[in-house]
Amino acid sequence: MNTAETIASIGENQSLKRTIARLNQADSAIVGPGDDAAVLNAPDGRFVVTTDTLVEGHDFRLDWSSAYDLGWKAVASNIADVAAMGAVPTALVVALTAPGTTHVSWLEGFADGLAAACRTLAPGCGIVGGDLAASDQIVISVAAHGSLEGREPVLRSGARAGDVIAVAGTLGRAAAGLSLLQSGNTDAISAYDDLVNVQRRPQPPIAAGVAAAVAGATAMLDLSDGLAKDSARIAKASEVTIQFDPMLLQGFEAVLEEAARAIEVDEKIWVIGGGEDHSLLATFPADAVLPRAFKRIGVVLPAGAAPVMLGAGPLPELGWDSVTG
Amino acid sequence: MNTAETIASIGENQSLKRTIARLNQADSAIVGPGDDAAVLNAPDGRFVVTTDTLVEGHDFRLDWSSAYDLGWKAVASNIADVAAMGAVPTALVVALTAPGTTHVSWLEGFADGLAAACRTLAPGCGIVGGDLAASDQIVISVAAHGSLEGREPVLRSGARAGDVIAVAGTLGRAAAGLSLLQSGNTDAISAYDDLVNVQRRPQPPIAAGVAAAVAGATAMLDLSDGLAKDSARIAKASEVTIQFDPMLLQGFEAVLEEAARAIEVDEKIWVIGGGEDHSLLATFPADAVLPRAFKRIGVVLPAGAAPVMLGAGPLPELGWDSVTG
Repeated sequence: MNTAETIASIGENQSLKRTIARLNQADSAIVGPGDDAAVLNAPDGRFVVTTDTLVEGHDFRLDWSSAYDLGWKAVASNIADVAAMGAVPTALVVALTAPGTTHVSWLEGFADGLAAACRTLAPGCGIVGGDLAASDQIVISVAAHGSLEGREPVLRSGARAGDVIAVAGTLGRAAAGLSLLQSGNTDAISAYDDLVNVQRRPQPPIAAGVAAAVAGATAMLDLSDGLAKDSARIAKASEVTIQFDPMLLQGFEAVLEEAARAIEVDEKIWVIGGGEDHSLLATFPADAVLPRAFKRIGVVLPAGAAPVMLGAGPLPELGWDSVTG
Repeated sequence: MNTAETIASIGENQSLKRTIARLNQADSAIVGPGDDAAVLNAPDGRFVVTTDTLVEGHDFRLDWSSAYDLGWKAVASNIADVAAMGAVPTALVVALTAPGTTHVSWLEGFADGLAAACRTLAPGCGIVGGDLAASDQIVISVAAHGSLEGREPVLRSGARAGDVIAVAGTLGRAAAGLSLLQSGNTDAISAYDDLVNVQRRPQPPIAAGVAAAVAGATAMLDLSDGLAKDSARIAKASEVTIQFDPMLLQGFEAVLEEAARAIEVDEKIWVIGGGEDHSLLATFPADAVLPRAFKRIGVVLPAGAAPVMLGAGPLPELGWDSVTG
């Protein structure tokens, strides 16, 4: 491989060819990449679609994340939205814009990250199309698709007073990883590289989405902007109040305590306001048997003064806004 | 409306709410915008998907195109790819990144352009999801979906020696419009504003895609990078040579002659190398009855020395590369 090759030096066609060769096929593809469009199976006569974007300098920094990390993260963050509907991720299209000076080897690493995340997090899911264009900064836009396999989608609006609220996956780890990177404290970064790795390559519990739907989840979303902000979305859409039990969040905080102390941060902020773990937050009827991946962290109450409570007090909507940061 | 409002001043949630309110619904939407993902009907158990991106400074300039124009163009360029499979466009997701200083009124104009293009070019098609994030330059990534209504997709690889090749829509008009804008010749720009408008708001013949499929088209694509470059794609995928008849292209050239003379350009370059009309190029068996929208412009030969010929000579692949320009 000639590492001096850039995407401008070999052009769009060659760059795409080199990328596509490294991707895994989607099981659902009837026509894969290379034509004007892909054709996919939708066995139950419906499909789920969502889109999400990562922007250089806003959502990631090239000195903190490798091309592989970014390919992985672009897949993980998008298929988590598919899983949050109770669907199985099936196929993605990826639009990448990057400076013409970007090395082809970077593009290949990105493709490897895309493929690895599909294979690891959602076997059978693959990249079926893409677009590559020149820009001043790297922007990665993905549209992800999924199959409900005949089930009803789990919306944000179905939570009922009396339900329990539960989470599948970790809380605050990606935020801890980001704080560690931002601290510049190299000792702490290497001591807690497991947290930094969650920031770089989140591992959303994709299969838990289907498990939740099958177990009768009444509402669900993926935690992309933080527990406080995202739970308020369920509360508002469902016209209920969500009350988290501080005791039930302690386990999530405890595992972050040491890292928080190392860089003098309050780990509670990570657990409440950190979103990029892309864990699944769902409500279930009180008598439902929670799927193994889910841990109960609170209850759903009739709509009260605040959409979300932490114990007896209202929980402010701290968290990430993709425009204002 | 407060025109001083920016997307950073009102944040992602409010910005999206204001945008979604201006969009038209897709007929195929079971669950529309506002949840983690949309849910769409796919009546024949399959769906078509494609993605395409517009980048500020590379694909458009904000002083040449309004927000409305860009919304329109983003839809038109994407649904042309769906039509080129022989499918009916059904739904789009739109990822927009823009500086935080972007006015909300710009965003609203963009949404109006998206909606108008759907309503005009592909009634029933609508925007079912989106994403808005902060970036240094505007990047518009769209994923478009379509229904084959039980038909087989029309690929690039099906052209056979003996077929005719035909085009639905205009050739070179969008390129002429771009040249006019680039010339800075304000007299010529206003004299030929019909050409400038094709550049700003292309009118691809969407319904001709289905008509071609029904008429037995053997291969098809949308002309996004120019007749020379895109026809070479069919030739290579189908392992044939495509021969255009210069006489049959004269009509396309004649209507551009005057504008070309005004800014001292050769109109043949526009017709051969200009792509953004997003017209449909298709091959048909020699005995097929061409749909009304299509005009025959050449024939398909057994693979020869060059993938594409203009009369007796090989046609070089001049045209647009989205990375190198």
